[in-house]
Amino acid sequence: MAALSTEFGDLVQIKKQLIYVITLCKERGLVHSVKWASELAFALDPLPINQLPPSPPFTEEDAQDLDALGLAKSYFDLKEYDRAAYFLRGCRSQKAYFLYMYSRYLSGEKKKDDETVDSLGPLEKGQVRNEALRELRVELSKKHQAGELDGFTLYLYGVVLRKLDLLKEAVDVFVEATHALPLHWGAWLELCNLITNIEMLKALSLPDCWIRDFFLAHMYTELQMIKEALQKYQSLIDAGFSKSTYIISQIAVAYHNIRDIDQALSLFNELRGQDPYRIENMDTFSNLLYVRSMKPELSYLAHNLVEIDKYRVETCCVIGNYYSLRSQHEKAALYFQRR
Amino acid sequence: MAALSTEFGDLVQIKKQLIYVITLCKERGLVHSVKWASELAFALDPLPINQLPPSPPFTEEDAQDLDALGLAKSYFDLKEYDRAAYFLRGCRSQKAYFLYMYSRYLSGEKKKDDETVDSLGPLEKGQVRNEALRELRVELSKKHQAGELDGFTLYLYGVVLRKLDLLKEAVDVFVEATHALPLHWGAWLELCNLITNIEMLKALSLPDCWIRDFFLAHMYTELQMIKEALQKYQSLIDAGFSKSTYIISQIAVAYHNIRDIDQALSLFNELRGQDPYRIENMDTFSNLLYVRSMKPELSYLAHNLVEIDKYRVETCCVIGNYYSLRSQHEKAALYFQRR
Repeated sequence: MAALSTEFGDLVQIKKQLIYVITLCKERGLVHSVKWASELAFALDPLPINQLPPSPPFTEEDAQDLDALGLAKSYFDLKEYDRAAYFLRGCRSQKAYFLYMYSRYLSGEKKKDDETVDSLGPLEKGQVRNEALRELRVELSKKHQAGELDGFTLYLYGVVLRKLDLLKEAVDVFVEATHALPLHWGAWLELCNLITNIEMLKALSLPDCWIRDFFLAHMYTELQMIKEALQKYQSLIDAGFSKSTYIISQIAVAYHNIRDIDQALSLFNELRGQDPYRIENMDTFSNLLYVRSMKPELSYLAHNLVEIDKYRVETCCVIGNYYSLRSQHEKAALYFQRR
Repeated sequence: MAALSTEFGDLVQIKKQLIYVITLCKERGLVHSVKWASELAFALDPLPINQLPPSPPFTEEDAQDLDALGLAKSYFDLKEYDRAAYFLRGCRSQKAYFLYMYSRYLSGEKKKDDETVDSLGPLEKGQVRNEALRELRVELSKKHQAGELDGFTLYLYGVVLRKLDLLKEAVDVFVEATHALPLHWGAWLELCNLITNIEMLKALSLPDCWIRDFFLAHMYTELQMIKEALQKYQSLIDAGFSKSTYIISQIAVAYHNIRDIDQALSLFNELRGQDPYRIENMDTFSNLLYVRSMKPELSYLAHNLVEIDKYRVETCCVIGNYYSLRSQHEKAALYFQRR
């Protein structure tokens, strides 16, 4: 089960694919997928200037939409989603259509968050919903039936279905999205959150692409199949991804999950060395430091994260562990609540 | 004084310049300058696909920095500025250097804002300062003396000087920035905020570029030289920028400033027609509706803006005017305070 889908022989090819998909995701405002692909690309050897992949194809429709898309994207980047959608409504290119629908989705999310801030009890909070979801579902469903959705809009359709608690349909659509555009990590990550047991995983028909191994390793970690996860990650390291901070963090988390504290601590320290301003996963690191009662290290980590960004949930958790270890339990509880 | 610097004969050329500078600003995370240039580009006729400007030059240094820059930009876009700066520290290209320094600047701004949220009194608030400014000034000043700053880093240097209250030096550096890269609106806008009288304006030696007319018109509005401002804007409209929502909004504000309420109302209504999800300047619009006691219109505007984004300062001001007109003065005061 730990064998790799492909030989990974051609890391240059993979690097080119990553650079290409980074451009696509950037144009569409998919910042987290850009980050994931950029971290992985950074872990591979640089390409000489004459080997860089060409820009994505630019169609006649793209040229026609250029001005509206540029304007809308500038509003989108300033979180003016309604305004972005308004200027995209007459566009015809695939790219503009995605940004049009995604803007409407994010507008609904933003308004939901605003409502949540205003509402009082935790019960009420759970009931606030993105009001755009139903309409988006109707429109995307029609396009889906007509076979008109590309990899990115399939991904968005899946997100809409998932948010409407239509989980089975969502899984099918995300699988379709991975086939349409295997390199978009966002679709794989959504699958990770929806697959809850090994039978579901085995039943999936996934595209044969190197990125599937990253998905499987992630999946095994989530399903607590740590041995399989570690094997998979080791094979990815052997294939040439040894510098990937993403993989190092995943292995560290996996060791944490099976309480192999020494291995996990060692990997988290390596991670901090390579990526000292990283905040993600540092809550997990602090759990380990707490368990081992490593006061100076935990104190250093806590102060360091406060300096970088004191309002991140991970930082609050680290501070909570720090106060716990100092037996200041009231203060600790305060910070754990903030998560 | 209202004559235009150039003939504006070649709107195609201007459009190409705008598309080009949009790319440059995007790569550097200068979202407001991207927006300004995109709005203006949108107001001009579209270019056929074979007339689009080529991508900015891509040097050997850019190729070497590609992976680090891509990674750093993905962190930058997620507001992880320290992390972005860390991965840019070894880069050599001009673009990477700008993003390196700009990340450090924005990291300081973010931390300052976090401190301000935490601090209590308004007095204390004013004393919180961006801690990165001094170091940035020292480093940029050295590079400046060596003549190594490009248009974007000159702009950043000016911002740093302005934030350190070194206003005279800041003006000189912003003027230098407009010469190095006339198309970057951000530098002109900074000048607008620093020039406080007509003598200062006349003493400036500015580059001969069409964008200077936009600056002068803006400047005249700020200096309450409304007649000159309106002449300038009219000549820009005659030159081919009649569809620019930026110009329409500027003229509307100018009429508001001289209390020509009918003209101003008419232009704001035109603006709302073209850009119905716009929030900027709607506070000014609501002042006019208030003065004219136009209850239904003000009510409609207020409800509309609440629907779009209820937390924007402009929205709070519109709601304040709305409650004032309904003689609910306590509620009105509450919303005016939020600004």
